[in-house]
Amino acid sequence: MKAEEVKVGLAGVTVASSKISDVRGEEGKLIYRGYSIEDLAENSNFEETAYLLLYWRLPSEKELKEFKKKLVSFRRLSPNVIKGMKLFCKGTTPMEALRTTVSSISCGIPDARKLSKEETLNLGISLIAKFPVIIANYYRLKHGKSLVKPNPALGYAENFLWMLWGKKPTAIQTKSMDMDFVLHGDHSFNASTFAARIAASTMSDIFSALLAGICTLRGPLHGGAAQEVFEMLKKIKKPEAAEKYVLERLAKHEKVMGFGHRVYKTYDPRARVLKKMAEKLCTDEKDKKFFRIALKVEEIMIREKNLYPNVDFYSAVVYHSLKMPLEIDTPIFAIGRCPGYIAHIIEQYDDNKLIRPLAEYTGEVDLKYVPVHLR
Amino acid sequence: MKAEEVKVGLAGVTVASSKISDVRGEEGKLIYRGYSIEDLAENSNFEETAYLLLYWRLPSEKELKEFKKKLVSFRRLSPNVIKGMKLFCKGTTPMEALRTTVSSISCGIPDARKLSKEETLNLGISLIAKFPVIIANYYRLKHGKSLVKPNPALGYAENFLWMLWGKKPTAIQTKSMDMDFVLHGDHSFNASTFAARIAASTMSDIFSALLAGICTLRGPLHGGAAQEVFEMLKKIKKPEAAEKYVLERLAKHEKVMGFGHRVYKTYDPRARVLKKMAEKLCTDEKDKKFFRIALKVEEIMIREKNLYPNVDFYSAVVYHSLKMPLEIDTPIFAIGRCPGYIAHIIEQYDDNKLIRPLAEYTGEVDLKYVPVHLR
Repeated sequence: MKAEEVKVGLAGVTVASSKISDVRGEEGKLIYRGYSIEDLAENSNFEETAYLLLYWRLPSEKELKEFKKKLVSFRRLSPNVIKGMKLFCKGTTPMEALRTTVSSISCGIPDARKLSKEETLNLGISLIAKFPVIIANYYRLKHGKSLVKPNPALGYAENFLWMLWGKKPTAIQTKSMDMDFVLHGDHSFNASTFAARIAASTMSDIFSALLAGICTLRGPLHGGAAQEVFEMLKKIKKPEAAEKYVLERLAKHEKVMGFGHRVYKTYDPRARVLKKMAEKLCTDEKDKKFFRIALKVEEIMIREKNLYPNVDFYSAVVYHSLKMPLEIDTPIFAIGRCPGYIAHIIEQYDDNKLIRPLAEYTGEVDLKYVPVHLR
Repeated sequence: MKAEEVKVGLAGVTVASSKISDVRGEEGKLIYRGYSIEDLAENSNFEETAYLLLYWRLPSEKELKEFKKKLVSFRRLSPNVIKGMKLFCKGTTPMEALRTTVSSISCGIPDARKLSKEETLNLGISLIAKFPVIIANYYRLKHGKSLVKPNPALGYAENFLWMLWGKKPTAIQTKSMDMDFVLHGDHSFNASTFAARIAASTMSDIFSALLAGICTLRGPLHGGAAQEVFEMLKKIKKPEAAEKYVLERLAKHEKVMGFGHRVYKTYDPRARVLKKMAEKLCTDEKDKKFFRIALKVEEIMIREKNLYPNVDFYSAVVYHSLKMPLEIDTPIFAIGRCPGYIAHIIEQYDDNKLIRPLAEYTGEVDLKYVPVHLR
């Protein structure tokens, strides 16, 4: 086999058709089921967007009401699952807690591979509902706080902040959180979605497929690197210090966090929306200064490297203004992405072909076993 | 984008180079690090083969002794992990139990992404040691039996059967189990290994990468379908009924379990080894009859469809003679494959490039958001 035929990293290789979302890297556009992400972030909300991703179209008033009711009713975790969380959350990171807890929920279902399509979709919706509950519980258990019960009167994003903080967020805080979830809703065949689809392509169950996604999302090369961006911006301290910091890192060939993307060759449309939101959220002087540091880093990176901020970059500024614990940046990504994963898993089941590539073997050949005492 | 450029299922697409194993589908050959699978199955054992997969070469006498000692010392599960198993194993399938338990073990490690290469490899070895312990514990908890402690005097395969059955296996039973593990040790870029490598390619931790593999292995299109083969052979009842059964299924375009493979176009070398082992294991008349049913099904399938038995087919006969509970056929596959997963994850870390393909978008475009009350 010739070396040039090896598609390392599958960069630029198209592996499937999909009707869920389209990432137009050259134009800096992202669309979900036909709608631009800017349109949805401004005018829609997470529940509607999740419905759109799962059911191919925006819901009617009645459908939306029912869907919201369903999401509220699915927030509950079983006593066994809570016991498991208490056993494991204290000493671990949030992605491990999310992974273990989601896996433990599957232990209450006899065999998810045997469910009908409708039952599978329902299970998917229940997991969308449970993700923020798991993360809020994790955070409070980890920090020795008592658990906060879900509040059925609150919408998806608002209830998450309520359960996380133990107090109601303001309207702009809720809108920011909701918008951040919408922006993370789907992103075509990124690494984690691809892993989820590979698991689904063996006709594995929906929990396993979703978990293959979660396991892949956890890596720092994937996304949810807002924490690292935050640490960097904090370290820079003031806007005037940004240029020196960035140039020094570049001179040492070190990575500047939050820039560049395998697919986007121009401005990441999600970063553009978050940038606007960050500006709105920064009302006090301290937050404004943090925002100006980010602006300056962006300016230098575009000028020096022609690299644009990605979704993590302005997520970090938004989370900072929201006083979100940065340790849960990747789980927040996971909450937002959950409807996308579910939509992709179901799309894979619906028209399945096992995803199974080849590898070129470059190791030893024709060795003969020698008994251990003769080695 | 033209449709023919979409590599659906990645069939025939080479995605990476690897020095671990080579599947030569046309010749019906499988080699690990240069050694043929027949050579290893006959002359080596699982501990040696695991060492070979991880360290690129067979161990010296001293190295093997140390490696075995390490595997024995890593068998222990923490009290918290056992508590979790007691909480979740009763109502679930073995793959869910394996997934949840492995994930829960990671909760005892502060952050596995931050470990050195040596520490990561050590963690991999500890997981190889723990897989059979988890499965034996699961099986006994599920069926209301008391847990059996690992026996440090016993080797890998023997200890598994000891913990599973609560009594020592015979020499031929141990050899069969060990050989079955060796045969499952690695299989290049199958779907689950590919998923594990995708997770590793984001620089996710070793637990997450391994779990992405486990999640993908669970699907019936992947492997570990020995249970379905067993059910089929049992249903046929006697060798003389095999031809009619197979022809009827084929006429109805129904799948005959345990035949065909994406890569092997001739006899699967693992099936060949297992067939020999099955023949040796079948000593009483009942087992011999079961074996003859399998032979007859094989004969008809080759004659009618030119399809050869795969690894699951004769695994089913071996497990039947071993009196193995067939419900744990996929977990047994997972135990055997664990060293392969670990070797691939480490190979991916060592020369990493993010695996991130593209998809062709075939959905709606240019839709405009309409407020819910106007829909």
